[in-house]
Amino acid sequence: MLTRQSLPRIEDVKAALQRIAPYIHRTPVVQSELLNDLCKARLFFKCENFQKAGAFKSRGAVNAVFELTDEEASHGVATHSSGNHGSALARAASLRGIPAYVVVPSNAKAVKKSAIAAYGGEIIECEPTLAAREAMLATVIAKTGATFVPPYDDARIIAGQGTAALELIEDVPDLDSIIVPVGGGGLLAGTCLVGADKGIDVYGAEPEGAGDAYRSLTSGEHVTSQVPDTIADGLLTTLGILNFEIIKANVEAILLVSDDEIISAMALVWTRLKLVIEPSSAVTLAAVIRYPEYFTGAAVGIILTGGNVDLADLPFNP
Amino acid sequence: MLTRQSLPRIEDVKAALQRIAPYIHRTPVVQSELLNDLCKARLFFKCENFQKAGAFKSRGAVNAVFELTDEEASHGVATHSSGNHGSALARAASLRGIPAYVVVPSNAKAVKKSAIAAYGGEIIECEPTLAAREAMLATVIAKTGATFVPPYDDARIIAGQGTAALELIEDVPDLDSIIVPVGGGGLLAGTCLVGADKGIDVYGAEPEGAGDAYRSLTSGEHVTSQVPDTIADGLLTTLGILNFEIIKANVEAILLVSDDEIISAMALVWTRLKLVIEPSSAVTLAAVIRYPEYFTGAAVGIILTGGNVDLADLPFNP
Repeated sequence: MLTRQSLPRIEDVKAALQRIAPYIHRTPVVQSELLNDLCKARLFFKCENFQKAGAFKSRGAVNAVFELTDEEASHGVATHSSGNHGSALARAASLRGIPAYVVVPSNAKAVKKSAIAAYGGEIIECEPTLAAREAMLATVIAKTGATFVPPYDDARIIAGQGTAALELIEDVPDLDSIIVPVGGGGLLAGTCLVGADKGIDVYGAEPEGAGDAYRSLTSGEHVTSQVPDTIADGLLTTLGILNFEIIKANVEAILLVSDDEIISAMALVWTRLKLVIEPSSAVTLAAVIRYPEYFTGAAVGIILTGGNVDLADLPFNP
Repeated sequence: MLTRQSLPRIEDVKAALQRIAPYIHRTPVVQSELLNDLCKARLFFKCENFQKAGAFKSRGAVNAVFELTDEEASHGVATHSSGNHGSALARAASLRGIPAYVVVPSNAKAVKKSAIAAYGGEIIECEPTLAAREAMLATVIAKTGATFVPPYDDARIIAGQGTAALELIEDVPDLDSIIVPVGGGGLLAGTCLVGADKGIDVYGAEPEGAGDAYRSLTSGEHVTSQVPDTIADGLLTTLGILNFEIIKANVEAILLVSDDEIISAMALVWTRLKLVIEPSSAVTLAAVIRYPEYFTGAAVGIILTGGNVDLADLPFNP
């Protein structure tokens, strides 16, 4: 697999923002007096749920696709994903006029597959195991010569995801801290690069049911064994290797929250901010509410990462 | 009842915007390529779901409250409402530091009553009949000297609600038409004043199950008898008298939509615009989809009127 293993730097994030700006939304930052009062802090929500393809993943995907040489690009890009990265990469590839091959487990939801297909991605199904996924991806790449664009463990992806924090601090220069969800760690690692550059504390928020980043940071060892179980289905993945290196060196803390806390925070965002966000996006507000010791009195940036939900499968029903 | 019976004019709408601007949000206007493609039109959605108290009703309420003389204001304001007008009036009154008495039917939802109370409104319950409501309101006014601020059949309210359209055409000057929901007709009448001033066609969208405005306009007579039945619970009210006069003289058409069409349009706004809107706000997009003959190729302003929903009672479940 052609993962570039050099660690990205803040300069890469800044270059990424220049590169991707024509192809993504500059998303707005919103506030709520009620949520500020509730948390005794000033909260600034960056609305990546409004981002192209419905999630911040468009940033990394566009950055990776537009960094390719013409020769590389001519063979297309490939990835494995049953979520937002797959549709974001399909969209980015179509913008450059190249194919995107997306390996998807056969048990992926129809709504996810149709999102990938809607952006012109070519879906290749495989058995829902890690081994089957890697074998299928290798076959696709061998056959097409496509460049592998991993969902998070990749310098181009990390730099691209960091651009959300870069925009956020341009809009709100006096932030004390930024908190983002952590799954594979692409967004958190990119945000760490920005935070370190600006002297802003960076926190990760993680579901208790998928707490491998917390355990990795706490133990100092990269924990990969987990059987995740959380409503935050965008955060089931294991922390990447490059991501772990950057996060370990820079993050203030990883804060764990329960699924009940995630659902309550999600309901607050829906009813108070009137924004549709997915469960993975609510871990951050849940953490701000649960751990006031880190946030009381502070100006806190919160990246609302995505808004792709299945309305027929919402967690609010009594 | 102290309803001012003179018809409001465009100058009143402009004066209202000056008066209320310090107390309301200048709400954003958003677009969706996907919805534009679907409707073969350019749609501009004005996000009154982000408005203070969660709905455009804050505009009329603030306008009415801040138009009062100090002597009038000192006795407070009173209304009947089981919905957004009640909480909007409570909020407006608290901004001026005066009491708001809100007569609410005893079967109103707890979530509605708590919203009114959260803004400092004094809730007075009555039996859920028109006669009981009017009797209770008269009693409250006789006892307190409060000024009655009706939900829609009132020149100050109509002028206030018209400010949403005024802002919209400032932001999007080349609109061909504006479409808004019609219940009591405050928003539609105010929008008609703005449309007539600027030469922009104005449409009302109404649920088939509460189609009294359609029948009034079609027959030329003010139809008041109806037993409304629709998911759009903000549109159950009967068209007001002042409202009917203004709408009759200015509206292009009232367009009826079914509850199924409302739910489908609501799902499109939630999943594509990532905005939480209430069912009453979705009648407009439903009408644009159902009646392409009025909107194909046009630049269409759509006012998303409110975002106050009960997450435990959503219409999307299979």
